Amino acid sequence: MAKTRSESPPPVIPTSPKSEQAVGDVADMSVFCRAMAERAKSASFELLDLSSTIKNQWLEIAAGQLLIQSDIILSANALDVAQAPQFGLTPAAIDRLTLTSDRIQAIAVGLRAVAALPDPVGEILGGGIRPNGLEVKKVRVPIGVVLFIYESRPNVTADAAAIAIKSGNAIILRGGKEAYHTSLAITSILARAGEQCGLPDGALQMVNTIDRAAVGELLKLADYIDLVIPRGGESLVRRVTSEATMPVLKHYTGNCHVYVDRDANIAQAIAIVVNAKTDRMGVCNAAESLVVHSEIARSFLPKLNEALSLHGIELRGDLKVCSILPQAVPASEADWGLEYLGPILSIRIVDSLDEAIAHINRYGSKHTDAIVTRDLSSARRFTQRIDSAAVIVNASTRFNDGGELGLGAEIGISTDKLHARGPCGLTELTTYKYIITGDGHVRS
Amino acid sequence: MAKTRSESPPPVIPTSPKSEQAVGDVADMSVFCRAMAERAKSASFELLDLSSTIKNQWLEIAAGQLLIQSDIILSANALDVAQAPQFGLTPAAIDRLTLTSDRIQAIAVGLRAVAALPDPVGEILGGGIRPNGLEVKKVRVPIGVVLFIYESRPNVTADAAAIAIKSGNAIILRGGKEAYHTSLAITSILARAGEQCGLPDGALQMVNTIDRAAVGELLKLADYIDLVIPRGGESLVRRVTSEATMPVLKHYTGNCHVYVDRDANIAQAIAIVVNAKTDRMGVCNAAESLVVHSEIARSFLPKLNEALSLHGIELRGDLKVCSILPQAVPASEADWGLEYLGPILSIRIVDSLDEAIAHINRYGSKHTDAIVTRDLSSARRFTQRIDSAAVIVNASTRFNDGGELGLGAEIGISTDKLHARGPCGLTELTTYKYIITGDGHVRS
Repeated sequence: MAKTRSESPPPVIPTSPKSEQAVGDVADMSVFCRAMAERAKSASFELLDLSSTIKNQWLEIAAGQLLIQSDIILSANALDVAQAPQFGLTPAAIDRLTLTSDRIQAIAVGLRAVAALPDPVGEILGGGIRPNGLEVKKVRVPIGVVLFIYESRPNVTADAAAIAIKSGNAIILRGGKEAYHTSLAITSILARAGEQCGLPDGALQMVNTIDRAAVGELLKLADYIDLVIPRGGESLVRRVTSEATMPVLKHYTGNCHVYVDRDANIAQAIAIVVNAKTDRMGVCNAAESLVVHSEIARSFLPKLNEALSLHGIELRGDLKVCSILPQAVPASEADWGLEYLGPILSIRIVDSLDEAIAHINRYGSKHTDAIVTRDLSSARRFTQRIDSAAVIVNASTRFNDGGELGLGAEIGISTDKLHARGPCGLTELTTYKYIITGDGHVRS
Repeated sequence: MAKTRSESPPPVIPTSPKSEQAVGDVADMSVFCRAMAERAKSASFELLDLSSTIKNQWLEIAAGQLLIQSDIILSANALDVAQAPQFGLTPAAIDRLTLTSDRIQAIAVGLRAVAALPDPVGEILGGGIRPNGLEVKKVRVPIGVVLFIYESRPNVTADAAAIAIKSGNAIILRGGKEAYHTSLAITSILARAGEQCGLPDGALQMVNTIDRAAVGELLKLADYIDLVIPRGGESLVRRVTSEATMPVLKHYTGNCHVYVDRDANIAQAIAIVVNAKTDRMGVCNAAESLVVHSEIARSFLPKLNEALSLHGIELRGDLKVCSILPQAVPASEADWGLEYLGPILSIRIVDSLDEAIAHINRYGSKHTDAIVTRDLSSARRFTQRIDSAAVIVNASTRFNDGGELGLGAEIGISTDKLHARGPCGLTELTTYKYIITGDGHVRS
């Protein structure tokens, strides 16, 4: 496949000694991708009943090896950091890309944390004895082969591999080109640790070319790949969703709202909005829009404005907001649907709880929406009627996070309603099957 | 939209007095479908916290009205039956299409059975108090709007509406043109009962045109329709899967296997294969393929052949099978992947349990596969390694059915691995959300 000039082939670093596929320049992308997917599918059958002991040994050894081979990872990372300006990365993005010994230590700690989590595979989810004596068990099982496409920091490579394999899935990793060498170094170490422990060949693979054609080819292979998880910018998610022939679990935009009800505790409301907006502006559970009840707007908004101005937040409001806050910029219709991921907050005033709910359900992205209220009835209606993965009462939107909710680790936060919603950890990468046992039972 | 001659517009029967949309000949299919989807989405928000009492009242009144208005249904059904030959329906298909008072009675009983099932909405699936005092609840909620596209018997219309609405979803029904008048009559009665009970307007709609363009338009509306469930022939499912912009829950082919292990109880094996193959040949959980261990083939196959010959079953075997059973037809490679839905059984001889597992995982459709064995270790390996929705030990494949497994009612049997697998009843038409409650909590 032809490459664009900005995607010149990276140096050849095989993911594992067993990998004999061409890297960098791939002669036939379709054959290359199919071979990878077949290996993954074959591994997935072996993973179905692989013991927790082996999976945990792998995580422990991999964690140790990441520390022992830190220098190799740091050298690979230096290559990526050196190339970063040519990919147009901002200083903040380069900072997120850059590894240090401490950050590698944190990756290793993450792997050990996954080892410490209970294995979800084999959990009995329900069942019983039917009147005819048939024994029915609904049992949690791995999904199979997961393709993970991401544009993110190097630690995501290790986290995703750990979560997928601990939950019994084979994983094909396709990371961003900006972190290519780092991801390849980490994947190689993880794959070699897998060979030591008896992880099936092909359980962990990385797409070892940055040619974009690989994604298109992989998305055709529904017979081998059971699920694709895209995690990154909107255009990546849109491309994957439109091309994929297999189910997609989307980590999509987070246009998160805070609604301040008429009898909200104003001090709490200010603390929550400030935290939701400013704690980390570039993440999906940051607040992007504020909805305020008209009866509290005049007392609340000036105080909020004072608190937010310390953080340099631009306010974009409807006409009523602009009449209360002269410094607010008039919001356009488009503003209500935007995920700014930066120092802007849209603000709308409503005359009722139901108007707030209708606004959020219409313009939100079903990710995370919060209400600040002292009224139990308002809280109840808001949590029942808001159609989002996480609905929060009197707390910051920032709490919709696998770690904060006690999932232990996450591969992303799903904005889909099917299969899994919100943070996706080990159990979200499983499905179930029915095991039915009789003694010669036939149906009449 | 232009229509083919065989799809002339049916008589106009509005689904509900409130429906003012054109029926039969639709001027602008895109506008028509969008209006329907918008009504459904709007209803879905009202359904989020609709009480079980109202949903159950609706089911009871609808059941009563179906009986009271039997004559209207029977007249509509007579129209469909009269048109059946022009659609090329076989006598068996016409029999399945034909309603009688008894069959309408059975549909009403089905609605009352759904009323008696527990409401899945609001079930708390997990949660607890986090170390920082945040209260986390994972709560079962409806999916939203379901589009159900089916080619089936008239009772499916009522079952699907009952299951969708009892689980809190709005449903758009698109039935086969062969049962158009019957489905419209049933839907009208159900929708009017809904108006009496306070079901939200738009909760239950039927696509009241047989123009095929409607399906294409509806499949574009991912902003309004959360899930599409196609249930019917392979070409229907393929079309829906390739055109849908929203998640699809497939009710796909059932290429179900029975594997007879080397130490199987031969009498049980014969009873199970005969039942799985012949009890109802046209259904998805009927057996299509038999896999036999070589050590038992010579004693087992002639006896099985004797039993199956009473049912006129054609046997298609590999070379070894043909050498044991001279009347068997040589199977082609294509046979291993076929869902015959008729009096044919493919047979393959294998030398080991693992060879049987590999064959079934390769050629099967992940629907239902059974083993007949007395060996606990074989049963364990088979149930762990077969990647199908239902894996059965010493019983007929026919038991993979919502009623038989205790789900109470089903809208179909999913062959997908994501979201729901196997029979889909009330809980399979739900998702969940996190409700997180604090007291001014912010994240640092």
